[in-house]
Amino acid sequence: MASRSAREWQEQGPYAKAIERNAERQPRFESSSGAELDPLYSPEDLADWNYHEKLGYPGEYPFTRGVQPTMYRGRLWTMRQYAGFADAEESNRRYRFLLEQGQTGLSVAFDLPTQIGYDSDDPQADGEVGKVGVAIASLQDMETLTEGLPLERVTTSMTINATGPILLAMYVAAAKKQGADLAKVGGTTQNDILKEYIARGTYIFPPRPSLRLITDVFAWCKDELPSWNTISISGYHMREAGCTAAQELAFTFADAIEYVDAALDAGLEFDEFAPRLSFFWACHSNFLEEIAKFRASRRMWAEIATERYGSKNPRSQMLRFHTQTGGATLTAQQPMNNVVRTALQALSAVLGGTQSLHTNSWDEALALPTEESVEMALRTQQLIGFESGVADVIDPLAGSYYIEELTDRVEEEANAYLRRIEDIGGALTGIEEGFQQREIQESAFRLQRMQESEERIVVGVNRFQTEELEVPALAQHDRSVQTRQSERLAALRAERDGATVERALADIRAAARGDENMMPLLVAAVEAYATIGEICGVLREEWGEYQEVVTI
Amino acid sequence: MASRSAREWQEQGPYAKAIERNAERQPRFESSSGAELDPLYSPEDLADWNYHEKLGYPGEYPFTRGVQPTMYRGRLWTMRQYAGFADAEESNRRYRFLLEQGQTGLSVAFDLPTQIGYDSDDPQADGEVGKVGVAIASLQDMETLTEGLPLERVTTSMTINATGPILLAMYVAAAKKQGADLAKVGGTTQNDILKEYIARGTYIFPPRPSLRLITDVFAWCKDELPSWNTISISGYHMREAGCTAAQELAFTFADAIEYVDAALDAGLEFDEFAPRLSFFWACHSNFLEEIAKFRASRRMWAEIATERYGSKNPRSQMLRFHTQTGGATLTAQQPMNNVVRTALQALSAVLGGTQSLHTNSWDEALALPTEESVEMALRTQQLIGFESGVADVIDPLAGSYYIEELTDRVEEEANAYLRRIEDIGGALTGIEEGFQQREIQESAFRLQRMQESEERIVVGVNRFQTEELEVPALAQHDRSVQTRQSERLAALRAERDGATVERALADIRAAARGDENMMPLLVAAVEAYATIGEICGVLREEWGEYQEVVTI
Repeated sequence: MASRSAREWQEQGPYAKAIERNAERQPRFESSSGAELDPLYSPEDLADWNYHEKLGYPGEYPFTRGVQPTMYRGRLWTMRQYAGFADAEESNRRYRFLLEQGQTGLSVAFDLPTQIGYDSDDPQADGEVGKVGVAIASLQDMETLTEGLPLERVTTSMTINATGPILLAMYVAAAKKQGADLAKVGGTTQNDILKEYIARGTYIFPPRPSLRLITDVFAWCKDELPSWNTISISGYHMREAGCTAAQELAFTFADAIEYVDAALDAGLEFDEFAPRLSFFWACHSNFLEEIAKFRASRRMWAEIATERYGSKNPRSQMLRFHTQTGGATLTAQQPMNNVVRTALQALSAVLGGTQSLHTNSWDEALALPTEESVEMALRTQQLIGFESGVADVIDPLAGSYYIEELTDRVEEEANAYLRRIEDIGGALTGIEEGFQQREIQESAFRLQRMQESEERIVVGVNRFQTEELEVPALAQHDRSVQTRQSERLAALRAERDGATVERALADIRAAARGDENMMPLLVAAVEAYATIGEICGVLREEWGEYQEVVTI
Repeated sequence: MASRSAREWQEQGPYAKAIERNAERQPRFESSSGAELDPLYSPEDLADWNYHEKLGYPGEYPFTRGVQPTMYRGRLWTMRQYAGFADAEESNRRYRFLLEQGQTGLSVAFDLPTQIGYDSDDPQADGEVGKVGVAIASLQDMETLTEGLPLERVTTSMTINATGPILLAMYVAAAKKQGADLAKVGGTTQNDILKEYIARGTYIFPPRPSLRLITDVFAWCKDELPSWNTISISGYHMREAGCTAAQELAFTFADAIEYVDAALDAGLEFDEFAPRLSFFWACHSNFLEEIAKFRASRRMWAEIATERYGSKNPRSQMLRFHTQTGGATLTAQQPMNNVVRTALQALSAVLGGTQSLHTNSWDEALALPTEESVEMALRTQQLIGFESGVADVIDPLAGSYYIEELTDRVEEEANAYLRRIEDIGGALTGIEEGFQQREIQESAFRLQRMQESEERIVVGVNRFQTEELEVPALAQHDRSVQTRQSERLAALRAERDGATVERALADIRAAARGDENMMPLLVAAVEAYATIGEICGVLREEWGEYQEVVTI
């Protein structure tokens, strides 16, 4: 058996001869970061690579192969469709529908006023009530939202940041009213403000008080709500804004380091709060690179936890993450193609070992998903989980020369970015100087240019276009929600005990000036039916509002 | 860095402890053959495995990593949607539509009468004309079918077996009328009669004359039609009937060996005809096992070609194959789930290195696909080819401990089956004794039982069922095709030169009694506009019809 080297095969052998005869489809094949891909990966690419150092075993440092020892053989990932629209009653109906269809966790989308701290009847909220998510102005709405959902058993993820601690307080208050044991109440608040400044935009306060709110959540949950993921440090929105896979990891870990440092400054111990940190990745279309990214992310975090923070607790070192398929990869043209895009991305996420997954609906590029399209998206996960067999063996692609080489490369590229951010002075300074924002813009611009020059093909958009036939039935935003919400709020304000509300708000004001943990005060305020707008009003007066850095 | 063994991790380490605490989802995880899967694969599983022996390089023996040195970097697989219905005119319109949508090859489905040698106006054809494919009774129909399609440039696959040589003769005659250079006319005739006896059912003659027709095609094409794939030795239909991945390979290679032996008996040289043999695999839902199957199939054939037949020509040793996603995996319930099933299967086929691919339409479990559903199926291939990045690196999963272990295992299991068939006396004797038929029935029964006991989940069928909403618009079989075809045939019979037809049929009768190569005579007959029913009528009289073995 001849055993020529891969280099020889490529440079003088059959490959060299073949490309002399016929050029390849493209002059160059690239990763999402623009790094050139070799035609073939072979054992030579892993010559200095050590299995035990790079991969190890599932459930063990560095967790490359997964965070649990049995992974999906024990339990499939949580199928968690992000949903929420109109008011609490309608959203509650959608959640019940999803659970009946076999969904295994909830994920709440809030409307813009809720995300930036305005009540549904505030002039600032006009036209936005119940539009991109559900309107929640008070505990009353949260009670309606969670009615009939056993909060001790079903876990809930809430995409809420600037007002995350307030919504968490409402969720806790609703759980208490159900008589739930708070030790068993599980879920996640996104609570990741730094990426709001970078990419998502639903910030309210300046960074310092925002960070303090977050560390208050860390500190309070570790004793009061021990099964809660206190934060979901999110690369998703930066990726959606156009950054590369490696940047997604680097910018997110830079944010994570900022949160951890703030918590340490506030006197917390790493191994006490770090087990409840969680992460949130996008899954875009580059099938194999995304798998590598997920695997690299676990190894990077394990190293950050141990080498930077001296962690001794394996639970602090294991990166657990939610994945959402790439909204930005969906197209309004030929929208059913989105079913396929989403299916492939979902498979990447599963092969990458995600803990929970949202699959986008095919009509998500056009409108709020309908019941039918959401069902289809959930079925996509079930087909992968129950029919494809990929969940039967742990980390089944481990050892692949290309996957391991890519995993190493994504890690290296991300680490290099992380060092650049360190050199600037960390994530927050970077944001203040517009570094991350500029880098994302540049990557997005590169993608855009490649799409225009057709170096990057988007099916149905810049190739294989068709005349559009009829647009299928889409969900419409219902403006009557705003009226109903405003009426309910007026009734609530008339019924509740105004003096208790005033006292609770005064306590919050006092704490905002000092350093008392805000969480017990927020719980007390929402239990008195203080509204989100009232609470945020006080905090706005005390802390001011953040002004965006204009990047050039 | 600790470096415990995988066995220790599994038997005494974290895995053992985890399953002590909580049972896994299933008591046992299995391959399609029922072999137990380990939870984890690691370097230990490949301890005695040699890269150069098992994989080598793309374009080189044993071709495990692909048949061409550049694979999809050079050119993507041929996107070839199986299509055909009603008459030649309507099918021609569908082919033009598909080519406009970016399809890169044609694939013709014939109706049942054409497949079993009856003219459209034969009483035996009643109710079946143009139903499961296009009705082609004479060269006139073939001319209409290929009108405006440049047969020198577009390759055509024809799913035709018992009457394969006759349809090939028509195709050649149509190409000649276009003025095409026959050296450049490419495509495939399925021409695989043995699997018809086993699973598909469109045989006419007994095995011996059927094999003679096939070897006549081998012999004739090597000089007259050198770019034609003379046969597509097909596991697809056996897999659809319920066999396992390993059986699919074994039964197909056993058939291949029978064809090769018949050709050698007829005096042909292996390395002269073997380069034009091609294969046809199904792709079912077990994502990773199917990838392994495709890779194993290449290595097996390379070994058969060299070790059994002493091949010296690499082109005889490289297994080139078409893939169709698994029709039997589709469900009438929640039919849009079929889009996802097909997408995942198509990705398997591409990661397995297929040369051409048919992706099923989501409505294929309900009816003949519509233009919209066929477009969606083609878009699925384009999304994989142009957006997922999996075509940018050759055989990207190579080296994965699990994939390589599975590849070895599927190969071993298939080889064991192949030895059993050898022991019986080969594929034909096996068929005559009902061996393959029984084995397939047993596997199908096992699948059925697992589905009934819910060991095997089919989404929307035995779990996650929903009440069915409206059934979408489906294509209907148009019985008026039969009338139009009959009228055209009557006109043809009136117009053509009856004496030439009679002479051509007499020549065929004489050859059927002797051993002259039938192909030139078939070409002469179809050029005289002899019909398929007339030609098959003569051969039926001379050779008789095959009677099915009833298996118990």
